[in-house]
Amino acid sequence: MLRARLVVTGTEVLEGRVRDENGASIAADLTGRGIRVVGTVVVDDALASIEAAVAAALADGTDLVVVTGGLGPTHDDRTMEAVARAVGVPLAESATALARINEAMSGVRVRASAAVRDAAARKQALVPDGAVTLPPPGTAPGAVLPVGDQTVVVLPGPPWECMASWQHAVATPRLHDLLARAGGPPITLRLAGVVESEFIEAIDDPQWHDGIEVGVCAKPGELEVVIRPDDAHGRALAHHLDTTFPGAIFSRDGARIEQVLGAALQERGVTLATAESCTGGMIGARLTAVPGASAWYLGGVVSYDDAVKRDVLGVPAELLATHGAVSAACAEAMAVGVRAHLGSTWAISVTGIAGPGGGSPEKPIGLVYVGVTGPEGVDVRELHLYGDRERVRQRAATIALHMLREAVTA
Amino acid sequence: MLRARLVVTGTEVLEGRVRDENGASIAADLTGRGIRVVGTVVVDDALASIEAAVAAALADGTDLVVVTGGLGPTHDDRTMEAVARAVGVPLAESATALARINEAMSGVRVRASAAVRDAAARKQALVPDGAVTLPPPGTAPGAVLPVGDQTVVVLPGPPWECMASWQHAVATPRLHDLLARAGGPPITLRLAGVVESEFIEAIDDPQWHDGIEVGVCAKPGELEVVIRPDDAHGRALAHHLDTTFPGAIFSRDGARIEQVLGAALQERGVTLATAESCTGGMIGARLTAVPGASAWYLGGVVSYDDAVKRDVLGVPAELLATHGAVSAACAEAMAVGVRAHLGSTWAISVTGIAGPGGGSPEKPIGLVYVGVTGPEGVDVRELHLYGDRERVRQRAATIALHMLREAVTA
Repeated sequence: MLRARLVVTGTEVLEGRVRDENGASIAADLTGRGIRVVGTVVVDDALASIEAAVAAALADGTDLVVVTGGLGPTHDDRTMEAVARAVGVPLAESATALARINEAMSGVRVRASAAVRDAAARKQALVPDGAVTLPPPGTAPGAVLPVGDQTVVVLPGPPWECMASWQHAVATPRLHDLLARAGGPPITLRLAGVVESEFIEAIDDPQWHDGIEVGVCAKPGELEVVIRPDDAHGRALAHHLDTTFPGAIFSRDGARIEQVLGAALQERGVTLATAESCTGGMIGARLTAVPGASAWYLGGVVSYDDAVKRDVLGVPAELLATHGAVSAACAEAMAVGVRAHLGSTWAISVTGIAGPGGGSPEKPIGLVYVGVTGPEGVDVRELHLYGDRERVRQRAATIALHMLREAVTA
Repeated sequence: MLRARLVVTGTEVLEGRVRDENGASIAADLTGRGIRVVGTVVVDDALASIEAAVAAALADGTDLVVVTGGLGPTHDDRTMEAVARAVGVPLAESATALARINEAMSGVRVRASAAVRDAAARKQALVPDGAVTLPPPGTAPGAVLPVGDQTVVVLPGPPWECMASWQHAVATPRLHDLLARAGGPPITLRLAGVVESEFIEAIDDPQWHDGIEVGVCAKPGELEVVIRPDDAHGRALAHHLDTTFPGAIFSRDGARIEQVLGAALQERGVTLATAESCTGGMIGARLTAVPGASAWYLGGVVSYDDAVKRDVLGVPAELLATHGAVSAACAEAMAVGVRAHLGSTWAISVTGIAGPGGGSPEKPIGLVYVGVTGPEGVDVRELHLYGDRERVRQRAATIALHMLREAVTA
């Protein structure tokens, strides 16, 4: 298998002020193309740090090294210089890059003098000699640099620029040829309602460990399984999992539950509304991250305060007084209420105690009720989740989406 | 300054199937304590990969190495073994750890035989000889291992277990002594409405580069500035920024805008409601991530479909027909509508075109209107954002929160 190493630059990433997105996105893309990512390093902005990391990544013969960040106009943005030093070539001004940068800058309102702009453009047009520059999604162009049989790709740091540049990079002849030699995508399955220990038990047979590589990753409420290679043997394991856990596999192409659910709703020409208490809008945010969600998602009510549950969703005041907001009865009334209020085919509701405050012996932190309602009645599930506030909320949201998918596709 | 290196283990992280949270969280915590994080590596689950990464991290004399992940009960969880090999000590069963694991397991419903459970407990009680084990938040205990003057901390992989274990680790005498020698927290400022080039210009004077270290990180709609050390010189720079950008600094202790806004609302005894279209619930989700948000956040309406804007929020049908859903008039009506509907003191609304579809020459992708209303009228701002769908949504949400903070604290 072809091998890749990633070098993520940026003191803000190294110090945890921003989460790395580029390393993960590029790694997922490479893995999907059948290239093995063997290591990722995060380093600060210093020239020496980046140079050392790139040199180390190239040292063991890795086919592809992808470096992100540090392509901006300031003197602190030294990634191109560091790559040039690590590879042992000088920097050279790219006329193509300079023209593209000037064009990109002409469309941006910059509060700077012409001299400052010109210096910024020229700085960003300096790339390692021999590199092919990429069209800049922002103003900083990335580059593809051949180093003997190895290839170094340099991409800008802002995540959307990074991924847009990466699409340009894979279209270059150099990467096109490299990727043509990649192993092709693995089999990626996503399962709901199966815990890791059950999965481990299901593949506890020598035939599933011989000439086949299985990775498993537990996510809140889901299990992701990656099988390599995608050949007869790999597909036999996929089939084995399908029969061992009937109905559990909800995705066979890497699609997330939001996408799978959206496709199921759209296919049926039906709509969805949400009523969220402890998740506070997370489900709506996840659903609307799917482009085209307007075809099947009407919207929802974030009924964080009990008065909103009562006045907007129509949860009876007596119900709230008797059962409390965190109850099966309230989850049911929220789901039914939002469905009626927004006029959707389906509705889901979540109410629970995410912590760190608000727990009691009767209703501990992690107690969550999820309601699903549609043309044929309403179903409520009681969950006992553990972990911190964010984990409880995320898991509750994921389980609600899975409950709805089950109901819609039943 | 004391130096730390992080080793994040896990093929699922390396291949981008899950985003790293542990490395970033630990790095942010260490940075906040005045320890310099000099590098983070992500490696797969293989024994050799982890062993090599830990050995390399120790090789340059780093004071602290933090390793996360791979402490589970299966034979693939080999981090403790890898650390022991890297350090050159044998594995030894910790009686304390075994007792704690058995206690933790007794509270978990496990579908496994007693023999399997016992083997799992014993496997997880094996730690490098000389290590102090930590109380397990789940069932896998972490450990603190002295290596001469250096220290290795091993933490479980699930993020909430990792951070809970880290709190136990910093309370051990070994880390307590180490952290007492740390430099103390830097000055961390967050600014709104200032772009990076303006900031760079503001500190373009030798006095702000001599004996002082300044880091800047551009986030959507915000700028984070870290100044080291927190001494008279550092504070003079903070004061300089305060006078150069009056009112722009909204956080001086690392607090996020949601927290700052929540505190401002709570202090004044007022409440907030949200009306979200293109952000789909992101603002509500961010607000409710703050513990205790129920004191000031009533809830909101995700009015993704125009019928919800009309029927739930009371946006007039004629307004939608004339101006469209993405218009200043609609943003105003959404904000006013949700404030009336939920009975809040303040309200914010967002409506826009996040892409990738839906753009037109008159209303391009990235056009977003944000409305803010309160006791004294309504204010709408027109934004022209760039980037992909998620960036447009995130930035719109952040700008909406800042607009509200300005209005509330005016």
